[in-house]
Amino acid sequence: MLWTSGWRLASAAANSGCLGLIGAASMYPDILLEHIQKCKKATNKPFGVNVPLLYPDLEEVMKIIVDEGVKIVFVSAGNPKTWTPFFKEKGITVVHVVGSVKFALKAQEAGVDAVVAEGFEAGGHNGREETTTMCLIPMVKKEVKIPLIAAGGIATGRSMLAAMTLGADGVQVGTRFVASEEASVHPNFKQRIITSQEGDTVLTLKKLVPVRLLRNEFYKKVQAAEDRGASTEELQHILGRARAKKGMFEGDMEEGELEIGQIAAAVREIKPVKDIVDEIIAEFLLAQKEAGSYNF
Amino acid sequence: MLWTSGWRLASAAANSGCLGLIGAASMYPDILLEHIQKCKKATNKPFGVNVPLLYPDLEEVMKIIVDEGVKIVFVSAGNPKTWTPFFKEKGITVVHVVGSVKFALKAQEAGVDAVVAEGFEAGGHNGREETTTMCLIPMVKKEVKIPLIAAGGIATGRSMLAAMTLGADGVQVGTRFVASEEASVHPNFKQRIITSQEGDTVLTLKKLVPVRLLRNEFYKKVQAAEDRGASTEELQHILGRARAKKGMFEGDMEEGELEIGQIAAAVREIKPVKDIVDEIIAEFLLAQKEAGSYNF
Repeated sequence: MLWTSGWRLASAAANSGCLGLIGAASMYPDILLEHIQKCKKATNKPFGVNVPLLYPDLEEVMKIIVDEGVKIVFVSAGNPKTWTPFFKEKGITVVHVVGSVKFALKAQEAGVDAVVAEGFEAGGHNGREETTTMCLIPMVKKEVKIPLIAAGGIATGRSMLAAMTLGADGVQVGTRFVASEEASVHPNFKQRIITSQEGDTVLTLKKLVPVRLLRNEFYKKVQAAEDRGASTEELQHILGRARAKKGMFEGDMEEGELEIGQIAAAVREIKPVKDIVDEIIAEFLLAQKEAGSYNF
Repeated sequence: MLWTSGWRLASAAANSGCLGLIGAASMYPDILLEHIQKCKKATNKPFGVNVPLLYPDLEEVMKIIVDEGVKIVFVSAGNPKTWTPFFKEKGITVVHVVGSVKFALKAQEAGVDAVVAEGFEAGGHNGREETTTMCLIPMVKKEVKIPLIAAGGIATGRSMLAAMTLGADGVQVGTRFVASEEASVHPNFKQRIITSQEGDTVLTLKKLVPVRLLRNEFYKKVQAAEDRGASTEELQHILGRARAKKGMFEGDMEEGELEIGQIAAAVREIKPVKDIVDEIIAEFLLAQKEAGSYNF
């Protein structure tokens, strides 16, 4: 999660019993190095790094991951064939993030260890098929043999159990952790999330790479351009550079790009990561008991 | 379900242990009367009628429902205040179909007995917020006190249990029954469903009333018009009249409007309703056992 998941969030998640991930998307290589080193000092539990393949400096990033002994890499937004052999050769576990059955199969063929299947409701970059978590998980489960991690709309123990009932082996939680004390996003953004309402996020920029974000002035400009049939060049110009940084890290709630999932509308409190994880587990255990009690 | 759910499907569902619904949307009043009377002959179990409030002849339709002694009405696409008092006065159970928390609350305030909360993945008319079933069900559950029926993406026992884990008291299954032997849609449409692929449905006509349908020549015309920023009048002209009939009932797979849910891509066989229901229940019971066995 760009601008969100630095060493504080990743190590807090790891120390709470999750697999914490450092989001490399918003980090220059030297910053990533610093975060990995700080994360190692803050936890002795396993953690990973998420690398979207559409950013520059990839070779330098991969070298840092290997040199620092990171054992797990989540890869998104790119061809799984490009880097999987490199990671496997180094003994690193590779997980690919996909938004469709087609890409899940491609990732499996490329030799990844697991896939994250991410539904339409997820924040940030998203699949073109717009398949929701409820539809995507059973379809991926039917086709792939490797472990399947569900993402998109999962912020509670109930949704975790629902995703596993649909066929997932585990879940990836994003949005809920953006509203954590340890997330490195600007306080304005955390506040915006916990006061957001249903319908406040939208999947947009479909002519470029579809992305789910909160509606604001920046979004209105994009929408107006799309409504008049703007070209990809014009949309690229409106998007400009560093929009996500402006919003998520610097706190400009109107001109920034605010990537977040649809479930933000159900997140009402900023909490420490450990409390969030404990609540998810407690609710999961309760939902398990309830699930056994439904009778026809 | 327009052009789908006549007396054959509704009575078969009722006889299989579900609440079968006759879809009045595609029926003139005299046809609806015929279907209700045939349904009563074909089953002694309860069944209901679904009435979208955006069609004409509503008073005549409501009179038939009352005169024929129909005890359960599902209402969609309209203000819950308009007809709820009428039904309640006659002792009829009223359920409203909604796509958002906001409309669920409005329906509850109007005195309906239950709501169907229908996610973005559902076929046909759909909410403007684009909230998916995974996000919508917990949010509606948190706000409303009346019984909650989940819809959108539910075609199997696993997805039924997942929806109930999210907070639903029951589920409404649409798409799976369109590919049943008893559905009155054209065989071409059933065949198109069981050969459809992920990404084949899309939510479109957002400037009019958002509707999920299968991509075909008709959809391409709509999409091309939307891409160039067409007005609602132009879109209305492209849509024209009786598009759904042309596709779903008459079997024109290119020029017709083919309303169906995203989960169509996971439906691979046309079966009798009873077999579909038996499979859903068997899988639900299996998924219940599995749900109890996940350990941390």
